[in-house]
Amino acid sequence: MNDKDIAFMREALNEAKIAYRKDEVPIGAVVVRDSKIIGRGHNLRESLKDPTAHAELIAIREASRSIGDWRLEDTTLYVTLEPCIMCAGAILLSRIPRVVFGAEDKKGGALVSLLHVFDTPGLNHKVVYEGGVLEEESRRLLKEFFKALRNKEKWPSLAEGARLEIE
Amino acid sequence: MNDKDIAFMREALNEAKIAYRKDEVPIGAVVVRDSKIIGRGHNLRESLKDPTAHAELIAIREASRSIGDWRLEDTTLYVTLEPCIMCAGAILLSRIPRVVFGAEDKKGGALVSLLHVFDTPGLNHKVVYEGGVLEEESRRLLKEFFKALRNKEKWPSLAEGARLEIE
Repeated sequence: MNDKDIAFMREALNEAKIAYRKDEVPIGAVVVRDSKIIGRGHNLRESLKDPTAHAELIAIREASRSIGDWRLEDTTLYVTLEPCIMCAGAILLSRIPRVVFGAEDKKGGALVSLLHVFDTPGLNHKVVYEGGVLEEESRRLLKEFFKALRNKEKWPSLAEGARLEIE
Repeated sequence: MNDKDIAFMREALNEAKIAYRKDEVPIGAVVVRDSKIIGRGHNLRESLKDPTAHAELIAIREASRSIGDWRLEDTTLYVTLEPCIMCAGAILLSRIPRVVFGAEDKKGGALVSLLHVFDTPGLNHKVVYEGGVLEEESRRLLKEFFKALRNKEKWPSLAEGARLEIE
Protein backbone atom coordinates (compact mmCIF):
# COMPACT_ATOMS: atom_id res chain seq x y z
CA MET A 1 0.00 0.00 0.00
CA ASN A 2 1.38 3.45 -0.92
CA ASP A 3 0.12 7.02 -1.27
CA LYS A 4 -1.01 6.36 -4.82
CA ASP A 5 -3.08 3.37 -3.70
CA ILE A 6 -4.78 5.50 -1.07
CA ALA A 7 -5.48 8.28 -3.57
CA PHE A 8 -7.07 5.88 -6.07
CA MET A 9 -9.04 4.11 -3.38
CA ARG A 10 -10.47 7.52 -2.50
CA GLU A 11 -11.67 7.75 -6.08
CA ALA A 12 -13.30 4.32 -5.72
CA LEU A 13 -14.92 5.56 -2.48
CA ASN A 14 -16.26 8.58 -4.35
CA GLU A 15 -17.89 6.17 -6.79
CA ALA A 16 -19.37 4.25 -3.84
CA LYS A 17 -20.86 7.50 -2.54
CA ILE A 18 -22.50 8.14 -5.90
CA ALA A 19 -24.10 4.67 -5.63
CA TYR A 20 -25.29 5.56 -2.10
CA ARG A 21 -27.02 8.68 -3.35
CA LYS A 22 -28.82 6.53 -5.93
CA ASP A 23 -30.07 4.20 -3.18
CA GLU A 24 -27.69 1.49 -4.34
CA VAL A 25 -25.48 -0.59 -2.04
CA PRO A 26 -22.42 1.74 -1.92
CA ILE A 27 -19.57 -0.02 -3.68
CA GLY A 28 -17.23 1.74 -6.10
CA ALA A 29 -14.30 0.83 -8.32
CA VAL A 30 -11.73 2.40 -10.62
CA VAL A 31 -9.29 0.87 -13.11
CA VAL A 32 -5.94 2.66 -13.30
CA ARG A 33 -3.16 2.53 -15.89
CA ASP A 34 -0.04 4.71 -15.85
CA SER A 35 -1.47 6.61 -12.88
CA LYS A 36 -4.58 7.54 -14.86
CA ILE A 37 -8.14 6.36 -14.28
CA ILE A 38 -9.33 4.61 -17.46
CA GLY A 39 -12.55 3.15 -16.04
CA ARG A 40 -14.95 3.99 -13.21
CA GLY A 41 -17.98 2.25 -11.87
CA HIS A 42 -20.42 2.04 -9.01
CA ASN A 43 -23.00 -0.54 -8.18
CA LEU A 44 -26.17 -0.02 -10.23
CA ARG A 45 -27.99 -3.29 -9.73
CA GLU A 46 -31.31 -1.80 -8.73
CA SER A 47 -31.27 1.19 -11.09
CA LEU A 48 -30.47 -0.95 -14.12
CA LYS A 49 -32.30 -4.05 -12.83
CA ASP A 50 -29.16 -5.91 -13.87
CA PRO A 51 -27.65 -8.55 -11.57
CA THR A 52 -24.26 -8.08 -13.26
CA ALA A 53 -24.11 -4.29 -12.75
CA HIS A 54 -21.43 -4.42 -10.04
CA ALA A 55 -18.93 -1.58 -9.67
CA GLU A 56 -16.01 -3.70 -10.89
CA LEU A 57 -17.78 -5.01 -14.00
CA ILE A 58 -18.86 -1.51 -15.00
CA ALA A 59 -15.33 -0.13 -14.43
CA ILE A 60 -13.75 -3.02 -16.38
CA ARG A 61 -16.10 -2.54 -19.32
CA GLU A 62 -15.45 1.20 -19.37
CA ALA A 63 -11.69 0.64 -19.20
CA SER A 64 -11.85 -1.82 -22.12
CA ARG A 65 -13.88 0.65 -24.14
CA SER A 66 -11.50 3.48 -23.35
CA ILE A 67 -8.40 1.61 -24.54
CA GLY A 68 -10.17 -0.37 -27.30
CA ASP A 69 -8.94 -3.74 -26.01
CA TRP A 70 -10.39 -6.35 -23.67
CA ARG A 71 -6.92 -7.05 -22.30
CA LEU A 72 -6.37 -4.73 -19.36
CA GLU A 73 -2.69 -5.48 -18.93
CA ASP A 74 -0.58 -3.15 -16.76
CA THR A 75 -3.60 -1.94 -14.81
CA THR A 76 -4.66 -1.93 -11.17
CA LEU A 77 -8.30 -2.28 -10.13
CA TYR A 78 -9.29 -0.51 -6.90
CA VAL A 79 -12.56 -1.53 -5.32
CA THR A 80 -14.02 -0.57 -1.96
CA LEU A 81 -15.24 -4.10 -1.12
CA GLU A 82 -13.67 -7.52 -1.71
CA PRO A 83 -14.88 -8.71 -5.15
CA CYS A 84 -17.54 -11.42 -5.47
CA ILE A 85 -17.13 -14.59 -7.56
CA MET A 86 -18.42 -12.94 -10.75
CA CYS A 87 -16.12 -9.95 -10.42
CA ALA A 88 -13.10 -12.09 -9.50
CA GLY A 89 -13.79 -14.07 -12.68
CA ALA A 90 -14.08 -10.88 -14.73
CA ILE A 91 -10.74 -9.67 -13.34
CA LEU A 92 -9.11 -12.92 -14.51
CA LEU A 93 -10.74 -12.70 -17.95
CA SER A 94 -9.58 -9.12 -18.45
CA ARG A 95 -6.03 -10.00 -17.35
CA ILE A 96 -5.87 -7.29 -14.72
CA PRO A 97 -2.60 -8.04 -12.90
CA ARG A 98 -3.28 -6.26 -9.59
CA VAL A 99 -6.30 -5.72 -7.37
CA VAL A 100 -6.52 -3.50 -4.29
CA PHE A 101 -9.65 -3.70 -2.18
CA GLY A 102 -10.99 -1.98 0.94
CA ALA A 103 -13.10 -4.07 3.30
CA GLU A 104 -13.41 -7.83 3.28
CA ASP A 105 -16.81 -9.31 2.40
CA LYS A 106 -17.22 -12.24 4.76
CA LYS A 107 -20.41 -13.49 3.09
CA GLY A 108 -19.62 -13.14 -0.58
CA GLY A 109 -15.95 -12.24 -1.04
CA ALA A 110 -14.12 -14.45 -3.51
CA LEU A 111 -10.51 -13.46 -2.73
CA VAL A 112 -9.98 -14.17 0.96
CA SER A 113 -13.44 -14.89 2.44
CA LEU A 114 -15.90 -17.33 0.85
CA LEU A 115 -13.38 -18.45 -1.80
CA HIS A 116 -9.77 -17.80 -2.78
CA VAL A 117 -10.34 -17.57 -6.53
CA PHE A 118 -7.01 -15.98 -7.46
CA ASP A 119 -5.15 -18.80 -5.72
CA THR A 120 -6.87 -21.56 -7.72
CA PRO A 121 -4.27 -24.01 -9.04
CA GLY A 122 -4.22 -24.21 -12.83
CA LEU A 123 -5.21 -20.60 -13.58
CA ASN A 124 -3.49 -19.21 -16.63
CA HIS A 125 -3.36 -15.68 -15.23
CA LYS A 126 -1.76 -14.43 -12.02
CA VAL A 127 -3.35 -11.65 -9.99
CA VAL A 128 -1.57 -9.93 -7.12
CA TYR A 129 -4.07 -8.64 -4.56
CA GLU A 130 -4.15 -6.72 -1.33
CA GLY A 131 -6.97 -5.73 1.00
CA GLY A 132 -7.49 -3.28 3.83
CA VAL A 133 -6.90 0.01 1.97
CA LEU A 134 -9.28 2.63 3.45
CA GLU A 135 -11.13 -0.33 4.87
CA GLU A 136 -12.79 1.67 7.64
CA GLU A 137 -14.22 4.29 5.31
CA SER A 138 -15.60 1.60 3.02
CA ARG A 139 -17.15 -0.37 5.85
CA ARG A 140 -18.64 2.74 7.47
CA LEU A 141 -20.33 3.70 4.22
CA LEU A 142 -21.91 0.25 3.90
CA LYS A 143 -23.02 0.29 7.54
CA GLU A 144 -24.63 3.72 7.14
CA PHE A 145 -26.42 2.51 4.02
CA PHE A 146 -27.90 -0.57 5.62
CA LYS A 147 -28.81 1.37 8.77
CA ALA A 148 -30.60 3.97 6.65
CA LEU A 149 -32.30 1.20 4.70
CA ARG A 150 -33.62 -0.40 7.89
CA ASN A 151 -34.77 2.99 9.15
CA LYS A 152 -36.47 3.70 5.87
CA GLU A 153 -38.34 0.43 6.12
CA LYS A 154 -39.38 1.24 9.69
CA TRP A 155 -39.77 5.03 9.48
CA PRO A 156 -39.78 6.13 5.83
CA SER A 157 -39.88 9.85 6.67
CA LEU A 158 -36.63 9.72 8.68
CA ALA A 159 -34.58 8.02 5.98
CA GLU A 160 -33.51 11.18 4.16
CA GLY A 161 -31.74 12.47 7.24
CA ALA A 162 -29.49 9.44 7.54
CA ARG A 163 -28.31 9.91 3.99
CA LEU A 164 -26.69 13.24 4.81
CA GLU A 165 -24.12 11.55 7.02
CA ILE A 166 -22.15 10.41 3.98
CA GLU A 167 -21.74 13.80 2.34
CA MET B 1 -32.26 -34.29 -19.35
CA ASN B 2 -35.54 -34.29 -21.29
CA ASP B 3 -36.83 -33.30 -24.75
CA LYS B 4 -37.34 -29.73 -23.65
CA ASP B 5 -33.74 -29.49 -22.47
CA ILE B 6 -32.53 -30.74 -25.83
CA ALA B 7 -34.74 -28.29 -27.71
CA PHE B 8 -33.50 -25.32 -25.69
CA MET B 9 -29.89 -26.44 -25.96
CA ARG B 10 -30.40 -26.40 -29.72
CA GLU B 11 -31.36 -22.75 -29.39
CA ALA B 12 -28.16 -22.15 -27.41
CA LEU B 13 -26.23 -23.93 -30.18
CA ASN B 14 -27.86 -21.65 -32.74
CA GLU B 15 -26.53 -18.70 -30.76
CA ALA B 16 -23.07 -20.32 -30.75
CA LYS B 17 -23.24 -20.59 -34.54
CA ILE B 18 -24.02 -16.88 -34.81
CA ALA B 19 -20.87 -16.21 -32.76
CA TYR B 20 -18.90 -18.49 -35.12
CA ARG B 21 -20.03 -16.49 -38.13
CA LYS B 22 -18.80 -13.33 -36.41
CA ASP B 23 -15.35 -14.92 -35.87
CA GLU B 24 -16.03 -15.25 -32.17
CA VAL B 25 -15.34 -18.39 -30.12
CA PRO B 26 -18.68 -20.20 -30.66
CA ILE B 27 -20.48 -20.31 -27.34
CA GLY B 28 -24.18 -19.61 -26.96
CA ALA B 29 -26.75 -19.40 -24.17
CA VAL B 30 -30.46 -18.92 -23.58
CA VAL B 31 -32.45 -18.20 -20.42
CA VAL B 32 -35.84 -19.91 -20.28
CA ARG B 33 -38.88 -19.30 -18.09
CA ASP B 34 -42.23 -21.08 -18.47
CA SER B 35 -40.92 -22.77 -21.64
CA LYS B 36 -40.20 -19.39 -23.23
CA ILE B 37 -36.82 -17.90 -24.08
CA ILE B 38 -36.52 -14.59 -22.22
CA GLY B 39 -32.83 -13.97 -22.93
CA ARG B 40 -30.33 -15.00 -25.61
CA GLY B 41 -26.64 -14.41 -25.98
CA HIS B 42 -23.52 -15.44 -27.81
CA ASN B 43 -19.92 -14.66 -27.12
CA LEU B 44 -18.97 -11.20 -28.40
CA ARG B 45 -15.67 -10.58 -26.68
CA GLU B 46 -13.73 -9.57 -29.78
CA SER B 47 -16.53 -7.66 -31.53
CA LEU B 48 -17.31 -5.59 -28.45
CA LYS B 49 -13.73 -5.62 -27.11
CA ASP B 50 -15.34 -6.47 -23.80
CA PRO B 51 -13.84 -9.20 -21.60
CA THR B 52 -17.22 -9.70 -19.90
CA ALA B 53 -19.21 -10.24 -23.14
CA HIS B 54 -19.71 -13.96 -22.60
CA ALA B 55 -22.85 -15.68 -23.91
CA GLU B 56 -24.23 -16.28 -20.41
CA LEU B 57 -23.74 -12.71 -19.22
CA ILE B 58 -25.40 -11.30 -22.29
CA ALA B 59 -28.33 -13.74 -21.99
CA ILE B 60 -28.72 -12.97 -18.26
CA ARG B 61 -28.74 -9.23 -18.85
CA GLU B 62 -31.29 -9.58 -21.64
CA ALA B 63 -33.49 -11.81 -19.49
CA SER B 64 -33.36 -9.28 -16.63
CA ARG B 65 -34.29 -6.47 -18.99
CA SER B 66 -37.12 -8.48 -20.49
CA ILE B 67 -38.79 -9.20 -17.12
CA GLY B 68 -37.75 -5.92 -15.46
CA ASP B 69 -36.13 -7.64 -12.50
CA TRP B 70 -32.57 -8.76 -11.72
CA ARG B 71 -33.93 -11.83 -9.93
CA LEU B 72 -34.26 -14.60 -12.49
CA GLU B 73 -36.17 -16.98 -10.29
CA ASP B 74 -37.91 -19.98 -11.90
CA THR B 75 -35.60 -19.93 -14.91
CA THR B 76 -33.17 -22.36 -16.52
CA LEU B 77 -29.99 -21.21 -18.23
CA TYR B 78 -28.81 -23.35 -21.14
CA VAL B 79 -25.23 -22.84 -22.31
CA THR B 80 -23.19 -24.82 -24.81
CA LEU B 81 -20.00 -24.83 -22.69
CA GLU B 82 -19.46 -25.18 -18.95
CA PRO B 83 -19.56 -21.65 -17.49
CA CYS B 84 -16.37 -19.88 -16.37
CA ILE B 85 -15.86 -18.35 -12.91
CA MET B 86 -17.37 -15.00 -13.91
CA CYS B 87 -20.47 -16.57 -15.42
CA ALA B 88 -20.94 -19.00 -12.52
CA GLY B 89 -20.84 -15.96 -10.23
CA ALA B 90 -23.36 -14.11 -12.38
CA ILE B 91 -25.69 -17.13 -12.25
CA LEU B 92 -25.54 -17.04 -8.44
CA LEU B 93 -26.15 -13.29 -8.34
CA SER B 94 -29.16 -13.54 -10.61
CA ARG B 95 -30.61 -16.42 -8.55
CA ILE B 96 -31.02 -18.71 -11.55
CA PRO B 97 -32.00 -22.04 -9.95
CA ARG B 98 -30.98 -24.42 -12.76
CA VAL B 99 -28.17 -24.59 -15.30
CA VAL B 100 -27.83 -27.05 -18.18
CA PHE B 101 -24.57 -27.04 -20.12
CA GLY B 102 -23.15 -28.91 -23.10
CA ALA B 103 -19.43 -29.68 -23.08
CA GLU B 104 -17.12 -29.47 -20.08
CA ASP B 105 -14.37 -26.84 -20.17
CA LYS B 106 -11.37 -28.54 -18.63
CA LYS B 107 -9.25 -25.38 -18.57
CA GLY B 108 -11.70 -22.77 -17.39
CA GLY B 109 -14.94 -24.43 -16.30
CA ALA B 110 -16.12 -23.39 -12.86
CA LEU B 111 -18.80 -26.04 -12.23
CA VAL B 112 -17.04 -29.41 -12.53
CA SER B 113 -13.57 -28.72 -13.98
CA LEU B 114 -11.26 -26.00 -12.61
CA LEU B 115 -13.61 -25.19 -9.72
CA HIS B 116 -16.93 -26.38 -8.26
CA VAL B 117 -18.39 -22.96 -7.59
CA PHE B 118 -22.00 -24.06 -7.06
CA ASP B 119 -20.90 -26.51 -4.38
CA THR B 120 -19.10 -23.87 -2.29
CA PRO B 121 -20.16 -24.22 1.36
CA GLY B 122 -21.85 -21.09 2.71
CA LEU B 123 -23.50 -19.94 -0.53
CA ASN B 124 -26.89 -18.36 0.04
CA HIS B 125 -28.30 -19.61 -3.25
CA LYS B 126 -28.59 -23.18 -4.52
CA VAL B 127 -28.12 -24.01 -8.19
CA VAL B 128 -28.97 -27.41 -9.67
CA TYR B 129 -26.77 -28.15 -12.67
CA GLU B 130 -26.29 -30.80 -15.29
CA GLY B 131 -23.80 -31.17 -18.16
CA GLY B 132 -23.48 -33.24 -21.30
CA VAL B 133 -26.59 -32.06 -23.18
CA LEU B 134 -25.73 -31.97 -26.92
CA GLU B 135 -22.15 -32.12 -25.74
CA GLU B 136 -20.80 -33.50 -29.03
CA GLU B 137 -22.38 -30.78 -31.17
CA SER B 138 -21.00 -28.11 -28.86
CA ARG B 139 -17.51 -29.57 -28.81
CA ARG B 140 -17.46 -30.12 -32.59
CA LEU B 141 -18.34 -26.47 -33.20
CA LEU B 142 -15.50 -25.31 -30.96
CA LYS B 143 -13.04 -27.71 -32.61
CA GLU B 144 -14.03 -26.51 -36.08
CA PHE B 145 -13.59 -22.93 -34.97
CA PHE B 146 -10.12 -23.41 -33.58
CA LYS B 147 -9.08 -25.53 -36.56
CA ALA B 148 -10.27 -22.79 -38.92
CA LEU B 149 -8.49 -20.19 -36.79
CA ARG B 150 -5.22 -22.08 -37.03
CA ASN B 151 -5.69 -22.50 -40.77
CA LYS B 152 -6.46 -18.83 -41.15
CA GLU B 153 -3.25 -17.97 -39.36
CA LYS B 154 -1.30 -20.32 -41.62
CA TRP B 155 -3.24 -19.99 -44.89
CA PRO B 156 -5.60 -16.98 -44.70
CA SER B 157 -7.21 -17.67 -48.09
CA LEU B 158 -8.42 -21.14 -47.05
CA ALA B 159 -10.17 -20.03 -43.89
CA GLU B 160 -13.52 -19.12 -45.44
CA GLY B 161 -14.04 -22.70 -46.66
CA ALA B 162 -13.72 -24.18 -43.20
CA ARG B 163 -16.44 -21.89 -41.95
CA LEU B 164 -19.05 -23.52 -44.17
CA GLU B 165 -18.80 -26.76 -42.25
CA ILE B 166 -20.95 -25.37 -39.46
CA GLU B 167 -23.93 -24.33 -41.60
